[in-house]
Amino acid sequence: MKNTFGQNIAVTIYGESHGESIGVVLDGMTAGIPVDREYINAQLALRRPSGKISTSRQEQDEFRIVSGVFEGRTTGTPICIVIPNTQTRSKDYSATRALARPSHADYTANCKYHGFEDYRGGGHFSGRITAGLVAGGAIALTALRGKGIQIGTHIARCGAVKDREFQDISKDIDSLKSRNFAVLDESAEIEMKQKIESVAKEGDSVGGVLETAVIGMPAGVGEPWFDTIEGILSHALFSIPAIKGVQFGNAFDMVDLMGSQYNDSFRMDGDKIVTATNHNGGINGGITNGMPLLFQCAVKPTPSIYKEQETVNFFTKENATLQIQGRHDPAIIHRARVVVDSMTALVLCDILSGRFGTDWLYSER
Amino acid sequence: MKNTFGQNIAVTIYGESHGESIGVVLDGMTAGIPVDREYINAQLALRRPSGKISTSRQEQDEFRIVSGVFEGRTTGTPICIVIPNTQTRSKDYSATRALARPSHADYTANCKYHGFEDYRGGGHFSGRITAGLVAGGAIALTALRGKGIQIGTHIARCGAVKDREFQDISKDIDSLKSRNFAVLDESAEIEMKQKIESVAKEGDSVGGVLETAVIGMPAGVGEPWFDTIEGILSHALFSIPAIKGVQFGNAFDMVDLMGSQYNDSFRMDGDKIVTATNHNGGINGGITNGMPLLFQCAVKPTPSIYKEQETVNFFTKENATLQIQGRHDPAIIHRARVVVDSMTALVLCDILSGRFGTDWLYSER
Amino acid sequence: MKNTFGQNIAVTIYGESHGESIGVVLDGMTAGIPVDREYINAQLALRRPSGKISTSRQEQDEFRIVSGVFEGRTTGTPICIVIPNTQTRSKDYSATRALARPSHADYTANCKYHGFEDYRGGGHFSGRITAGLVAGGAIALTALRGKGIQIGTHIARCGAVKDREFQDISKDIDSLKSRNFAVLDESAEIEMKQKIESVAKEGDSVGGVLETAVIGMPAGVGEPWFDTIEGILSHALFSIPAIKGVQFGNAFDMVDLMGSQYNDSFRMDGDKIVTATNHNGGINGGITNGMPLLFQCAVKPTPSIYKEQETVNFFTKENATLQIQGRHDPAIIHRARVVVDSMTALVLCDILSGRFGTDWLYSER
Amino acid sequence: MKNTFGQNIAVTIYGESHGESIGVVLDGMTAGIPVDREYINAQLALRRPSGKISTSRQEQDEFRIVSGVFEGRTTGTPICIVIPNTQTRSKDYSATRALARPSHADYTANCKYHGFEDYRGGGHFSGRITAGLVAGGAIALTALRGKGIQIGTHIARCGAVKDREFQDISKDIDSLKSRNFAVLDESAEIEMKQKIESVAKEGDSVGGVLETAVIGMPAGVGEPWFDTIEGILSHALFSIPAIKGVQFGNAFDMVDLMGSQYNDSFRMDGDKIVTATNHNGGINGGITNGMPLLFQCAVKPTPSIYKEQETVNFFTKENATLQIQGRHDPAIIHRARVVVDSMTALVLCDILSGRFGTDWLYSER
Repeated sequence: MKNTFGQNIAVTIYGESHGESIGVVLDGMTAGIPVDREYINAQLALRRPSGKISTSRQEQDEFRIVSGVFEGRTTGTPICIVIPNTQTRSKDYSATRALARPSHADYTANCKYHGFEDYRGGGHFSGRITAGLVAGGAIALTALRGKGIQIGTHIARCGAVKDREFQDISKDIDSLKSRNFAVLDESAEIEMKQKIESVAKEGDSVGGVLETAVIGMPAGVGEPWFDTIEGILSHALFSIPAIKGVQFGNAFDMVDLMGSQYNDSFRMDGDKIVTATNHNGGINGGITNGMPLLFQCAVKPTPSIYKEQETVNFFTKENATLQIQGRHDPAIIHRARVVVDSMTALVLCDILSGRFGTDWLYSER
Repeated sequence: MKNTFGQNIAVTIYGESHGESIGVVLDGMTAGIPVDREYINAQLALRRPSGKISTSRQEQDEFRIVSGVFEGRTTGTPICIVIPNTQTRSKDYSATRALARPSHADYTANCKYHGFEDYRGGGHFSGRITAGLVAGGAIALTALRGKGIQIGTHIARCGAVKDREFQDISKDIDSLKSRNFAVLDESAEIEMKQKIESVAKEGDSVGGVLETAVIGMPAGVGEPWFDTIEGILSHALFSIPAIKGVQFGNAFDMVDLMGSQYNDSFRMDGDKIVTATNHNGGINGGITNGMPLLFQCAVKPTPSIYKEQETVNFFTKENATLQIQGRHDPAIIHRARVVVDSMTALVLCDILSGRFGTDWLYSER
Repeated sequence: MKNTFGQNIAVTIYGESHGESIGVVLDGMTAGIPVDREYINAQLALRRPSGKISTSRQEQDEFRIVSGVFEGRTTGTPICIVIPNTQTRSKDYSATRALARPSHADYTANCKYHGFEDYRGGGHFSGRITAGLVAGGAIALTALRGKGIQIGTHIARCGAVKDREFQDISKDIDSLKSRNFAVLDESAEIEMKQKIESVAKEGDSVGGVLETAVIGMPAGVGEPWFDTIEGILSHALFSIPAIKGVQFGNAFDMVDLMGSQYNDSFRMDGDKIVTATNHNGGINGGITNGMPLLFQCAVKPTPSIYKEQETVNFFTKENATLQIQGRHDPAIIHRARVVVDSMTALVLCDILSGRFGTDWLYSER
Repeated sequence: MKNTFGQNIAVTIYGESHGESIGVVLDGMTAGIPVDREYINAQLALRRPSGKISTSRQEQDEFRIVSGVFEGRTTGTPICIVIPNTQTRSKDYSATRALARPSHADYTANCKYHGFEDYRGGGHFSGRITAGLVAGGAIALTALRGKGIQIGTHIARCGAVKDREFQDISKDIDSLKSRNFAVLDESAEIEMKQKIESVAKEGDSVGGVLETAVIGMPAGVGEPWFDTIEGILSHALFSIPAIKGVQFGNAFDMVDLMGSQYNDSFRMDGDKIVTATNHNGGINGGITNGMPLLFQCAVKPTPSIYKEQETVNFFTKENATLQIQGRHDPAIIHRARVVVDSMTALVLCDILSGRFGTDWLYSER
């Protein structure tokens, strides 16, 4: 399986940056979930570029739900959402097509598809494809919310500027919903944006760290081997372009701790079992323990920069230099955040649906 | 799918810490791969505890290959390897069974299996199950070696002590093969072991970072979405107990770099396309670019410590204190290293077999 | 997985009878296969109703290939083909929606989707969805043809009238390509059509048997257990509406034979190994033996008939009578034939791609 | 995936006819199902050869449950059952190994595994492997029984002798449980056995038809496309050696009916919705309708016969004659019946577990 992910609830994506449309088929979502076009639109807006910190390509994402929704609710059969591409610019790629953009997939695509790939604007590798994940993810987020499960992601770090950590997670997730640039500490937003703008002026780009929290997950979900919560989530998250690391809790920062410092003691909170700390990110032995899921994604700096770069021409097999043209993002971390929320929601719906059955996600049943 | 992983070459594991045996079924491995019992044994030995830095439970791992190998070679049909448990100690768990060991799966197993789980020694969650992965992985490593693909993992960090980085990767991988405690810099071994022993005396434990390199992978393998090399590898790696983070290159350390610093320039090396740096860990757009795969796993400190810990009794739902008895590892990172190599080999065989067909791994064809 | 089928090459379908469009995503097809719109259109025409023996709903199937094809060839990434619905008739279903049409899925859909299903015209259960399979299948058929593999299906029996058996299979497959009503013996066509028309006049319907032959399959493809050629093909074929039986060779007719009569003797044909008979339908032990694949599908009579039928109202839970209105087929066997060809092609491309690698289907490599 | 089947509950098989053991790993079965060794043994006994109508190879099937069962109940983790081979006869295969036994997999195995296959006694293709399915299936049957779901298979036809049809299905299933030779009409047993014995004397073999009924399945289970009940069941059933046809209801016998004759009218039976007839075998649109599942499997005559047969030597590529030696079954239909029951139970547990969640099968929850 390639462009389809999930066992009980599966998402299939298609499309290229400069094709007629991109889209998603969401299959297996339980029947009866309300589908709110405004909410899908708002989620897509969070992914759309805006202002000086993003590309100037402006897609309106005028999506059409062409199947699987009837009288405002999911039917239980595949939901296909089509998002037309309208802002593609015709241009002549012949001069640059064989110049492999560093850290991009031009060369690897050529190795894999033998030159038949649609190379315009990154083709099927384009971050534009994630719009489909956001549209499908909006329905998954709605279903989870109906069961009391909430997801929020903030920009924990960008351009060496740090946001504050999660504190009151429920309140923090709420506050993130209304924010276009997702930080918990508003002063971090100003600094991060300044950094991005300054880097943009130099024709360069930045990356960072996204941190995600999920509350309301029931305990006892996940598998001890292979289909651990960590394994399935990371499998999905790594397909978001630019994500190169995934850690639960903040594992890489804690590798010097001793067991007595790292272990999360259990304790009773009323009649609920909780842990005093949450270094394990809500997961023990691959299975949820009822505490918030906590994980971080390392986002590499956007590969498209305007500075001249060394590369090769993979047709002629010669060294070359490359000056990337076109419209590009000096940072994508603020746009990637809603993709992480969406992908997480899709994965959790799949896992929960497998654990508790196809009808479970419909809260009114 | 739960205890089975892989699409074209799949591995299934079974067993509990205190059951009759643990084992593995390796299915789909191409016919004709030589199976060397000595090599499997040597790999299992790397996983076995030894000396003061490990548990005193000593299993001889007297494995039996009960199917799928005929006249010394794989037949192409399922290879079942059975590894008996012999050193299980009968003891009375009634006093402690409901005391959730912090950072262990006792509580989550109870949530999932409703009390029917085999709780003795961690049951199916035990690291002992990884012996099956090592046995099956040995065959995968042999197959890859026949195609010029080599894998090596070293302890990059343990107890705040750092090993040197990979330099000449081919030579480094060679040197790791003969090392029981896998470091590149021998002085690091001494320091790390001292640290582990000192922590062990305090009844505590340590974690660290494992770093893996793979050389010889052909370019053009992997998928742009979902089944990225990063996604599939991390999915598998996260099921190794104690791994809580996976990064390609060393992504979390590089999030403050700018694109111009991070991007890996391409250049010709004779008629081969290579990159000047390898921050992307050999993967662009989810697909191998022919450079070494490089990734790191964060290993949390072993949860079993002898220090008294706060916890709950999940039957009576009361707070409690726990003093863990039995035989435990103050560190498992040096034992986990061969599990990472094995799991990586199994995953890569699966991916390569899907890309190039079932016969490809047999080098003599 | 529900609306997605296949491991290496997968097909995902979406849509409802009265929705905006139906469609298909074909993922994993090797790069470089020529995509001929005229051929796809011709295949869709074979599925379209025509004349007195079909429904009067006339969809033009003005399909759009919205991704995965670039400069006339497959790119290797998902091919999405959208087929708009244009001939849907608005009508009031309120009187009949809870009257379960016998042998239809109205009642079972209600049990599964709890009333949220799109019930108009059969919704997602409609045979109309198979148009997507035909469009995707056309590309699969093209790929197979490039490797010398040909598929042909004829109406072996319809309304108690029998067609002649396959004789010179290669020639017979050729002759079927140009036939809208797929029989090998033209006199059978006349009789079958008379039968269908006469039944249609009575407001009734007929079924029959489709027989398929595949030539050019290499020997050694398939698995001994579970993923046998028989198992995978039947899995896919049973999702074609109205197919209720699948047999290889004509197994049910041969159950009274003795082994000495049934066994297919091997013999040399030049330096090629063939069998004297082909009762096993080209498959031994789940694996192709190089002989033609031969199988038959039992097609039940179309469930929609105009005669009054006994049924229940599943909302009020009362007995009721039902007189079906609307546009219906007195037979669908002649239209189902191209769906069988298409589904078969999709399955074989998947299996071959897994066996020989992703590039194999591209004949020019 | 090859030797593993199922999504939520999966079965993996391994082993060869003349290897150390054969076995099964049953993964995903809900925790708490009682495991009764006597019942497993009784089921295995139904598969074992007996009397003059079977091979003289007598395996005692002294199985060992090596994981996944604790204190007499399933734990929810993989259940591995090992069945040693003890009655293997060493013999010299060198003279006959390249003589392809007609209708057997010798030749196709050689095409697939390039000569590395374990050819002794059919190797991994041997019907002996089905003992693992029966052992695992016994646990699945127990789980289903706890939910009121019962499965029974009878020999509907053998050697041209017919058994009576199902009448009172619940009572008929009960009566089949105690029968070693599964017919509903005892006089059929006598005739069928006479036929088998007479054929055996001639060194020949017979096949037949197995018919299966399942009662107690809830309505609303299955998928409209691809994962139809028909599709999943047939996929699994076709891996039982000798099965070459699967039909729901008795579809091939009913292809000449008109829709008005074939359609199953709905009607109220108290407050339960039932159908007047059951030509659709309990399935509409791929989904259960609450009526009994009814299907038939065509079993080809056992390929091993003592009569001299024409064949080829696939090493030398010459025509040859073959006189099969060893111990063989003149009929396997009476032994295959419990394999069909077991495979059906495994598939239904998987489907039900996906539909209603992992805990559903445990009746006491």
